[in-house]
Amino acid sequence: MRGAILSDLLTEILIPIAAFIGIVFSLIQWFIVSRVKVSPEPENRSSEKNKKNGYSDYLIEEEEGLNDHNIVVKCAEIQNAISEGATSFLFTEYQYVGVFMIAFAVLIFVFLGSVEGFSTKSQPCTYNKDKMCKPALATAIFSTVSFLLGAITSIVSGFLGMKIATYANARTTLEARKGVGKAFITAFRSGAVMGFLLSANGLLVLYIAINLFKVYYGDDWEGLFEAITGYGLGGSSMALFGRVGGGIYTKAADVGADLVGKVERNIPEDDPRNPAVIADNVGDNVGDIAGMGSDLFGSYAESSCAALVVASISSFGINHEFTSMCYPLLISSMGIIVCLITTLFATDFFEIKAVNEIEPALKKQLIISTVLMTIGIAIVSWIALPSSFTIFNFGVQKEVKNWELFFCVAIGLWAGLVIGFVTEYYTSNAYSPVQDVADSCRTGAATNVIFGLALGYKSVIIPIFAIAVSIFVSFSLAAMYGIAVAALGMLSTIATGLAIDAYGPISDNAGGIAEMAGMSHRIRERTDALDAAGNTTAAIGKGFAIGSAALVSLALFGAFVSRAAISTVDVLTPKVFIGLIVGAMLPYWFSAMTMKSVGSAALKMVEEVRRQFNTIPGLMEGHAKPDYATCVKISTDASLKEMIPPGALVMLTPLIVGSFFGVETLSGVLAGSLVSGVQIAISASNTGGAWDNAKKYIEAGASEHARTLGPKGSDPHKAAVIGDTIGDPLKDTSGPSLNILIKLMAVESLVFAPFFARHGGILFKIF
Amino acid sequence: MRGAILSDLLTEILIPIAAFIGIVFSLIQWFIVSRVKVSPEPENRSSEKNKKNGYSDYLIEEEEGLNDHNIVVKCAEIQNAISEGATSFLFTEYQYVGVFMIAFAVLIFVFLGSVEGFSTKSQPCTYNKDKMCKPALATAIFSTVSFLLGAITSIVSGFLGMKIATYANARTTLEARKGVGKAFITAFRSGAVMGFLLSANGLLVLYIAINLFKVYYGDDWEGLFEAITGYGLGGSSMALFGRVGGGIYTKAADVGADLVGKVERNIPEDDPRNPAVIADNVGDNVGDIAGMGSDLFGSYAESSCAALVVASISSFGINHEFTSMCYPLLISSMGIIVCLITTLFATDFFEIKAVNEIEPALKKQLIISTVLMTIGIAIVSWIALPSSFTIFNFGVQKEVKNWELFFCVAIGLWAGLVIGFVTEYYTSNAYSPVQDVADSCRTGAATNVIFGLALGYKSVIIPIFAIAVSIFVSFSLAAMYGIAVAALGMLSTIATGLAIDAYGPISDNAGGIAEMAGMSHRIRERTDALDAAGNTTAAIGKGFAIGSAALVSLALFGAFVSRAAISTVDVLTPKVFIGLIVGAMLPYWFSAMTMKSVGSAALKMVEEVRRQFNTIPGLMEGHAKPDYATCVKISTDASLKEMIPPGALVMLTPLIVGSFFGVETLSGVLAGSLVSGVQIAISASNTGGAWDNAKKYIEAGASEHARTLGPKGSDPHKAAVIGDTIGDPLKDTSGPSLNILIKLMAVESLVFAPFFARHGGILFKIF
Repeated sequence: MRGAILSDLLTEILIPIAAFIGIVFSLIQWFIVSRVKVSPEPENRSSEKNKKNGYSDYLIEEEEGLNDHNIVVKCAEIQNAISEGATSFLFTEYQYVGVFMIAFAVLIFVFLGSVEGFSTKSQPCTYNKDKMCKPALATAIFSTVSFLLGAITSIVSGFLGMKIATYANARTTLEARKGVGKAFITAFRSGAVMGFLLSANGLLVLYIAINLFKVYYGDDWEGLFEAITGYGLGGSSMALFGRVGGGIYTKAADVGADLVGKVERNIPEDDPRNPAVIADNVGDNVGDIAGMGSDLFGSYAESSCAALVVASISSFGINHEFTSMCYPLLISSMGIIVCLITTLFATDFFEIKAVNEIEPALKKQLIISTVLMTIGIAIVSWIALPSSFTIFNFGVQKEVKNWELFFCVAIGLWAGLVIGFVTEYYTSNAYSPVQDVADSCRTGAATNVIFGLALGYKSVIIPIFAIAVSIFVSFSLAAMYGIAVAALGMLSTIATGLAIDAYGPISDNAGGIAEMAGMSHRIRERTDALDAAGNTTAAIGKGFAIGSAALVSLALFGAFVSRAAISTVDVLTPKVFIGLIVGAMLPYWFSAMTMKSVGSAALKMVEEVRRQFNTIPGLMEGHAKPDYATCVKISTDASLKEMIPPGALVMLTPLIVGSFFGVETLSGVLAGSLVSGVQIAISASNTGGAWDNAKKYIEAGASEHARTLGPKGSDPHKAAVIGDTIGDPLKDTSGPSLNILIKLMAVESLVFAPFFARHGGILFKIF
Repeated sequence: MRGAILSDLLTEILIPIAAFIGIVFSLIQWFIVSRVKVSPEPENRSSEKNKKNGYSDYLIEEEEGLNDHNIVVKCAEIQNAISEGATSFLFTEYQYVGVFMIAFAVLIFVFLGSVEGFSTKSQPCTYNKDKMCKPALATAIFSTVSFLLGAITSIVSGFLGMKIATYANARTTLEARKGVGKAFITAFRSGAVMGFLLSANGLLVLYIAINLFKVYYGDDWEGLFEAITGYGLGGSSMALFGRVGGGIYTKAADVGADLVGKVERNIPEDDPRNPAVIADNVGDNVGDIAGMGSDLFGSYAESSCAALVVASISSFGINHEFTSMCYPLLISSMGIIVCLITTLFATDFFEIKAVNEIEPALKKQLIISTVLMTIGIAIVSWIALPSSFTIFNFGVQKEVKNWELFFCVAIGLWAGLVIGFVTEYYTSNAYSPVQDVADSCRTGAATNVIFGLALGYKSVIIPIFAIAVSIFVSFSLAAMYGIAVAALGMLSTIATGLAIDAYGPISDNAGGIAEMAGMSHRIRERTDALDAAGNTTAAIGKGFAIGSAALVSLALFGAFVSRAAISTVDVLTPKVFIGLIVGAMLPYWFSAMTMKSVGSAALKMVEEVRRQFNTIPGLMEGHAKPDYATCVKISTDASLKEMIPPGALVMLTPLIVGSFFGVETLSGVLAGSLVSGVQIAISASNTGGAWDNAKKYIEAGASEHARTLGPKGSDPHKAAVIGDTIGDPLKDTSGPSLNILIKLMAVESLVFAPFFARHGGILFKIF
């Protein structure tokens, strides 16, 4: 048996270097995007700039509006409105969330501190009774600190994502005048900014936190990494409100705008006369971008924490092998480098020239990153791990080889690719499932909905098998540590995943700006094509998010069980079984809340939009400007009010179940909500994606079949619009929020495990 | 400790007596219904008959058509067409199912026989190794026989239900001329015929089978009751095809008829010009009646079998206490008597005079039967059980008191009532949830669907808590036996449950016949009111069906685990966890299949109906008759073809998982599909019921609010029709079929348990 090849010192150096590379790379991308000017500039400077690129705009295409200063001014105006709306919403949201975070931080401190009566004395370690560990009060303090760190990092991640997205949308529109390739690259680069910033940032903060905590904890790694789990909890708590609040915001605006605009007034999507149109575009940025960013950051933080906490009680932790302990962080570091190379394939090595090259280009990103990362994982596993080591497995130490751990990470990674491809198959209008759904619009909205729901249900099958296989393999090879690193494997290409995911809303916004700025049909067609590909990539992103959430929460569940000192979770005991069935119900309860919230908020929006159309003279004719601000306010107020009950459900369930029913029932709840929530989340997001693209399929009329269903305004198209509207809350609110539900309950249970194990199950103790 | 008060001889006598009373009572109800003549009769005889009832028709109400012979003739004609269509479909279905049953019977024989190599030698018993039990070959033979018995009983139950329903529908229509009360009582009596025939029949066959098998088995009760489990499997296999085939049949016809008739041609529901109208009415009888009958019979048979098989290895079986062994049968016997008394409250003690008394009358049935049955259970528990006994609990014997068993049965019974009431609240248009859904139709079909889905999700919460509480209590008190008798408790009032459930489709048909026979608006209003109450009771029936299915399958799961000699099902092992997550996926896969089937079959129906409207001259004007037979054929062919894949999924999954992955993974699959399937089934059936009644709410226009949404043909009404159409496959095909999925997989696993335990898990054995 040999130790790790990589020295501890090199590990200490390599991780921050990778993070810095990621940050620098994202700044470079930002700089490139910033060269597209949204302020009108003198003719000569503009052409000079283009000459620097080696060619002149005039040589590419001479189009309407290319040099029209008015259009540029309009785009800049709209962009500002969107950016301001998004910023102001996020700041208001952060105020609410801030209050919650402080309250919850106090709760963590009190609950964890009370386990040993706020004792400041060292105590025997949980797993290694012969050794002395730091006092429980330290765990309480440091857990609270890392909780706040996670929350702040998550906020920063989401906020930066939103900033770059709103910075990029008008630029993408303007570039669309020059051709679809240039628009694509602008949108994609902007997505990459978010992807790299977020992954590098998450890694760096975690790395710094570990090193700082180590100053106090010294060689008590068990306590150190238990405290670090707060980082995951903080990340996911923030993600909860980001996803739910943002999701309600965006869909209230979207559904409200569509119901009056498209259905009643028969004006196009994103028409500037529609008062809810700015709110709709703001929504894309706060929901799909900031929410998604927080969500994936949460998954990343949690899977790292889950892996670290298990490793700390395995041979890595016991023998203080720092490099091996940092294996999860090294995987993420490698991921940043791999994604960097992958990005160059989309931005520099190849060029998109036609609309039909967009989807393949994005798909190639997934494949390239997965293949390269497989090699990357092999390298990291070879240099950072001893040839053989032991992993804590519910009370016993299980021997694991380094190549076995390679398989665990790799299978997670490849399962992600499978999920991505299956999602693409079921949501892209290039394949028969979406085309069948579009075809069912012939007989009206009812058959469209029936076929769409069936499609969503069906799309669950292969991803679940993929998840099941990766769970089985990684679980068998390396117990719960295997699951955690499998989740990390799926998330190792997070920078690329986020880039192609963020690309979607940016393109969607770009299309909206083109419409609002009154740009030509031809440009709108290009942004529509970008957007259709974006719907699919958004669905793929959601697939990754839910797939990784499933693995992450299982890993957290395992860590919780270890920390709560349970050795079996037997379905055949009533305590566990009722947990299981109630847990499986929670995603339904949660979805009922979020969907109803979107519905009610949308109804309010509809009333306001109708009121404006009825009372503002000249609005329909385009002579008067609508009152965008009121609609923004409605979405803001509704989402902030409505995010509280579902948020409370998720945050309070583990506390109530753990305190009153104890750790066995809580285990059942976690397992039940995991296996049930995953299914609803996948089916909801795919159903919604399919409906959206079925509508786009009819609108684009790119095939003989599609033309028999169209054009816009035909009966099948109207049926498709209804499906699209129903899908909105499914795919952008209730579906993605479920990821958080299952992850957050697991990580919360993990953090509070010592309290539940000591004081929980009051109800059963009384009776 | 005292023994049972009731002697074994008395038990032997009382059970068949109760069954006979049930059968006689149902024949009396049938006779009363048959006195409504559907053939025109001379004026004097008719009035003479009415005089025998103590009053004359002429004194009640003088209405159009009361003495119009033409209308009676027309009703008789339509009834014949429906009855013939239903009979012919069921016979065709039985041919297919017959082939399957024989094939599966062979499979059972081969699998079970091969466990000990078809040995004819006695072997040591599984649980009591000191004793000799009958050879495995006997188990194989008797299991096969009881499987066939169960299947045949299920077929007979469904068929008889269909016969009486088609016998009663036109009679209900004709009675509606005399007032809503008389129509109600006719429909309700007919439902009672089905309820009592089915419960008495199921009890009697089981009783006879036990007594006949005992001739061979003697005092080897372990073997005897293991063989009896085949009865449950037979019942549920048949129910699978009844539910799925019938469900696809009825909804293909319904959706197809609505899409062209109501949406495109703007003709009323059940208009005789619509070619699919007969198929639609036939569907109600084969799906909602025959399918439901088979389903509940299956639950009844399975919960009895689960209880018996556990009892046989508990002190009852070990000490050969026959009366106590027969406790489940005695509960059912008591149920028949209690339901008989309950029925009299609806038919004889009180009389319905106005439309708004219908729902309360049906609700009273639930309450009365539950209260009376609680006393009944107490009596049975007191006289049939020793004061203390032991129950087998995964390897150990647990001591149980007779009053504890009373609580187990009673909590199941009352949980059923809770589920019934919650279902009523969420699906009746007397309460705000459905009214909110109706209100959301203002903004179109999309919000209607969003609100409807949210309602369905929300409606899951309380039933799941009710199920969880009954599981916890009965599990804690009497282990798996407790769960089994809790399920029996919920099903003990099955006769009343079925009566109010069957009442729904009968009223629906009656309305259809009134429309087709061209009866007046006033009569149609009465049948509509009956039907609206029927939608709610149908939803309540589905609630009972799914609630009991959950308990039954848990009981079967427990019995399976015992028989497969597993002592824990630990979620923390990879084998079990992948089973759990894949199991939770199965209901989605299954629903995708059934919904897509309904969609495709409905599209075919739409094409045919359109073709007929376009090619048959004078059809729209009512001068020409449509070709009903072709539509019936389309539904028949589609349902027979489409029921095979979902059927195969359910039947093959336990065999494949058990054989290749072994009993642990199979346990996971059973638990996963149970906790996930229950949620989808409840939400699907309540969403569908709510949409249906939201539409009826707008149509009826009974309140100020409802009138602002109506009348028929308004935009909100059109949106409501779309919701109703989407809900059709949810509430009548995919939702209710899921009951069978979860029960059938469990009972199949139980029957094949010895094989899986011995030869299963090939894949893991190889690797």
